[in-house]
Amino acid sequence: MILARTLNNKPVNIATSVFKPCSLNLFFLLSTNRRDFSSISTTLLYSPFVLQPKYKLLNHSATFCNKNIVRFASLHPLTRASKFVKLSKDHVKRFVALLSPQQVYATKEYGGSCDIQDLAHYNTDFYKSNIGSSSVVLFPKNTAQVSNILAFCNQQKIAVVPQGGNTGVVGASTVLFDEVIISMSKFNKIRSIDLDSGALICDAGCVLQDLDHYVSQFGLIMPLDLGAKGSCHIGGNISTNAGGIRYLRYGSLHGSVLGLEVVLPDGQILNNLSTLRKDSTGYDLKQIFIGAEGTLGIVTGVSIQTAQRPMHTNVAILGFNSFDDARGTLALAKTHLSEILSAFEFWDDISMNITLDHFKFKNPLSDPYAFYALIETGGSNNTHDQEKIIAFLEHSMDKGFVKDGTLARDKTQATEAIRKFGVLHGYDISIPTSKFYDIVNDVRKRLEDAKVFTNATNGQITANKVDVIVGYGHIGDGNIHLNLMLKTIDSKVIQLLEPYIYEWVSTVSGSISAEHGLGLVKKDYLKYSKSPEIIQLMKKIKKIYDPNEIMNPYKFLPN
Amino acid sequence: MILARTLNNKPVNIATSVFKPCSLNLFFLLSTNRRDFSSISTTLLYSPFVLQPKYKLLNHSATFCNKNIVRFASLHPLTRASKFVKLSKDHVKRFVALLSPQQVYATKEYGGSCDIQDLAHYNTDFYKSNIGSSSVVLFPKNTAQVSNILAFCNQQKIAVVPQGGNTGVVGASTVLFDEVIISMSKFNKIRSIDLDSGALICDAGCVLQDLDHYVSQFGLIMPLDLGAKGSCHIGGNISTNAGGIRYLRYGSLHGSVLGLEVVLPDGQILNNLSTLRKDSTGYDLKQIFIGAEGTLGIVTGVSIQTAQRPMHTNVAILGFNSFDDARGTLALAKTHLSEILSAFEFWDDISMNITLDHFKFKNPLSDPYAFYALIETGGSNNTHDQEKIIAFLEHSMDKGFVKDGTLARDKTQATEAIRKFGVLHGYDISIPTSKFYDIVNDVRKRLEDAKVFTNATNGQITANKVDVIVGYGHIGDGNIHLNLMLKTIDSKVIQLLEPYIYEWVSTVSGSISAEHGLGLVKKDYLKYSKSPEIIQLMKKIKKIYDPNEIMNPYKFLPN
Ligand SMILES: Cc1cc2nc3c(=O)[nH]c(=O)nc-3n(C[C@H](O)[C@H](O)[C@H](O)COP(=O)(O)OP(=O)(O)OC[C@H]3O[C@@H](n4cnc5c(N)ncnc54)[C@H](O)[C@@H]3O)c2cc1C
Ligand SMILES: Cc1cc2nc3c(=O)[nH]c(=O)nc-3n(C[C@H](O)[C@H](O)[C@H](O)COP(=O)(O)OP(=O)(O)OC[C@H]3O[C@@H](n4cnc5c(N)ncnc54)[C@H](O)[C@@H]3O)c2cc1C
Repeated sequence: MILARTLNNKPVNIATSVFKPCSLNLFFLLSTNRRDFSSISTTLLYSPFVLQPKYKLLNHSATFCNKNIVRFASLHPLTRASKFVKLSKDHVKRFVALLSPQQVYATKEYGGSCDIQDLAHYNTDFYKSNIGSSSVVLFPKNTAQVSNILAFCNQQKIAVVPQGGNTGVVGASTVLFDEVIISMSKFNKIRSIDLDSGALICDAGCVLQDLDHYVSQFGLIMPLDLGAKGSCHIGGNISTNAGGIRYLRYGSLHGSVLGLEVVLPDGQILNNLSTLRKDSTGYDLKQIFIGAEGTLGIVTGVSIQTAQRPMHTNVAILGFNSFDDARGTLALAKTHLSEILSAFEFWDDISMNITLDHFKFKNPLSDPYAFYALIETGGSNNTHDQEKIIAFLEHSMDKGFVKDGTLARDKTQATEAIRKFGVLHGYDISIPTSKFYDIVNDVRKRLEDAKVFTNATNGQITANKVDVIVGYGHIGDGNIHLNLMLKTIDSKVIQLLEPYIYEWVSTVSGSISAEHGLGLVKKDYLKYSKSPEIIQLMKKIKKIYDPNEIMNPYKFLPN
Repeated sequence: MILARTLNNKPVNIATSVFKPCSLNLFFLLSTNRRDFSSISTTLLYSPFVLQPKYKLLNHSATFCNKNIVRFASLHPLTRASKFVKLSKDHVKRFVALLSPQQVYATKEYGGSCDIQDLAHYNTDFYKSNIGSSSVVLFPKNTAQVSNILAFCNQQKIAVVPQGGNTGVVGASTVLFDEVIISMSKFNKIRSIDLDSGALICDAGCVLQDLDHYVSQFGLIMPLDLGAKGSCHIGGNISTNAGGIRYLRYGSLHGSVLGLEVVLPDGQILNNLSTLRKDSTGYDLKQIFIGAEGTLGIVTGVSIQTAQRPMHTNVAILGFNSFDDARGTLALAKTHLSEILSAFEFWDDISMNITLDHFKFKNPLSDPYAFYALIETGGSNNTHDQEKIIAFLEHSMDKGFVKDGTLARDKTQATEAIRKFGVLHGYDISIPTSKFYDIVNDVRKRLEDAKVFTNATNGQITANKVDVIVGYGHIGDGNIHLNLMLKTIDSKVIQLLEPYIYEWVSTVSGSISAEHGLGLVKKDYLKYSKSPEIIQLMKKIKKIYDPNEIMNPYKFLPN
């Protein structure tokens, strides 16, 4: 059935649909790869806003200005810390001496030959949500160079911002004042692979997708995958403790990172590039760098456990009438698909409508449902996998959980950016599965009561400040994305949402940042997920590693 | 074929064999549980020596004395640190007030009613390799009590030793002077289980086997398993970063521990008992307690991710002519068994002979081989699993890797203790798979050259100081156990082995302690696996958490 009404009331273009309707047989089985629908799901998550540079940031020297920093600055006045030396031409000269002229991009103001626009790539994140003001970008190519730069910066008290692919979504790699960017983008060689164990050692600046491509020739797979994989670095993934869509199967980077090479702010190199799966010799210091967002040192080398690449992948899309049915199905999937289950992604009807409309896809199921899930399996014998999937689906339908389902068959490379909505305003949270969808309903009601939102299940655009409120996410990992589409950033709406959402999450012992980190945007809300004692200890740890606090200042930990 | 010669030349008792010969068909398929052969393998690993209390430890007040501490003391004179207050009757009175009389065991010397023998259980580890001298054991039952005790000890500078099941094998929970034992054995309640996510929250003193039993009723399984599971605590497992036999499938505790409740030495309670799979809010502080061996605080509560319990388990035993054939088979198992492979354990002919002889088992294969492997699979559909296993075995035999194989069928509860050999002297190391067996050959040659060992492949006892040198272990995780059976602890032999073995491991970037930790026995060898900079940082971390150094002194980090 074609969706009757879509977000912007345009007709759905059936011709471009990647999904075939499943009319005759309930399930159409064909080995596929998950890219089609899951990239839609990641796309949804990151739908960016159209950059509206109409805000002016106080105390901000750059010509750019942008949403997150503006929002942050309005709540917490940003002042440049006087403990840092003011960056000068002499410093830049020294950087050139420590590296080479080609490895230093500086604006004319600092003795270089660049215009600020030439540095736009390093000052602007993936979705232009965070736009920075750096005039100097350094490109070390090896560990010794990182060490030399950091030792100099530390001694001179020059603040630095380590930067990977700049795809983070919380402003963690954005420069606020005159910090120097240390871009890892030219430090990107594969060092070795151990085919017995699957341990890969590479430079931190390697792009995730390149690594996955490299290891695939050996029948291996990177233990993580995310929408930004074509741009993000493995060093950035580690520094943000990235999750993504293989998490359900391969678990956290805390388990799969085998070793790290890290340069501390004083230039000291900690080399622990172990390829060993097991090592119980002392405190596991590498763990603290996983998710440290560049605040303790620069990760220069990575040893990571790759996994056996599944030979066959199947994807099923299911429709449910209630959230509890989806939840029951997750439980059944864990039992029946057990060892082959690799993803269980969930979204609501409005998410579905928006996505179908944007991509001009037809609903892969013949009728619309209140909730949907995408299930991915990966295994070594496709006949076995499909038998398991059918048994699972039959069981789920017998129980009355699943109303309809289809197995996807085509691959598409759906473009990742949607640029037609207003401002996407998102919350990436972890909460117990039983409460998974309550927060979406609660927020809808709250904004409806405040008369800034009309709860129209078809996601129709209204005259209200808030157009759409959707919930979807990695339900298999308890990680929901609560996203709102606003006409524009509106302080009344933000005040209705924050700290309300963080308090809500805190009440159910959830996490205010499941996989995106704290950066600039969430640093002041850390208290909703961590106790004062724990935050105090974090500050002590920071002090040990970075006594001069030159590493990625103004972010991560609250003042 | 029955083994022609066994270690002590006694005939093999075929009647008690748990394995049926596989004469007609090469593979006899039957769903089973792995306990039979894998418990043999763990048994071998931990074969204890017969306690020979003939050493006297200098500066040691207790009546007990024992191998590891003696050995340690001979290399590094042990002196009681004067910074700690001498334990007194008054301190014990205070403990009674903070807990209750039933929760304090003290000898008469300290105003209690116990004889030192009454405390033997807490002073003697699982294999009587490490025997301590504590006269006071405390049994807190809740977090507040742990907090009160620690705050008092910290303020008074009373040294403490946290103790779980006391099954560790490196002397980490052994008291050297007048430290107070804080036993977690009465702090053992299950707190909650989230059936949606599989997150289990429990007290640190819960016994691993009890937890596994508890979660099994929900179709779940603990993500770790080890020979000591009937005695070890989950808190002890976490504090030693235990590996064990499910590691290949479920990975490290760094990935599966979701949250911890920890009491710091000053009594502060860090509560981070999160049940969330994903949480990226600040430094992941819990990680530092995983493997900290009680040197930073006491783990009181644990949140851990359980896994789906496999519905069917199969075990195959394979025989190889060369190590490289075993290595090739591991690679094939990863491809063919991929998602269902849960263990790949390896041992050499001498390990096999000793085990068969001790347990009066018949070799499950019809001929003897140079090397053996046990493969375990766990899956949700037994027909599928067995099809995969057969395809894998056929492939391995076609390639000429596997010479013979059988699928085990019976369950046994093989007793865990062997008490007939001399002194078992073991090294638990991680090295790259390609070098896995070289170290065994090298050490054999070295001891043969030094005329303390005769390399007899049948493991026959000779007149030499060293009877047997065997290699076996979790090859799937790169973790080998190199074990020697000595007639008695002999300083000449030890000098031939140490630091030789540690240097060897260091040369191939291995780990001198794959899964057992450092404790007392390995603390001074840490430099062979970690750089001076890293050790320095570890000491800084220790200082932050435990400035008075009351937690488990004399162990873990070198002076
Ligand atoms: C389309 C899209 C999809 C995404 N999907 C997911 C998802 O599914 N799951 C998820 O968890 N996240 C997701 N993200 C966000 C995620 O955090 C990033 O994509 C990625 O992990 C960051 O890598 P990066 O190299 O771009 O790091 P950057 O954005 O450059 O930096 C992120 C942080 O890490 C630090 N850093 C970077 N490199 C280093 C280094 N070598 N040493 C020290 N510090 C360093 C920076 O200082 C900064 O604090 C997505 C983002 C986009 C744009
Ligand atoms: C038969 C046998 C088989 C084994 N198999 C394996 C194996 O396969 N893999 C493996 O990795 N290990 C194995 N081990 C060793 C392993 O380290 C221990 O069995 C287990 O992990 C220790 O748990 P426990 O409760 O006995 O701790 P203990 O021995 O009591 O203590 C170990 C260390 O942890 C500390 N500790 C204990 N509880 C706490 C707490 N609540 N808070 C803070 N610190 C604490 C102690 O101070 C000490 O430093 C085996 C041991 C035996 C005897």
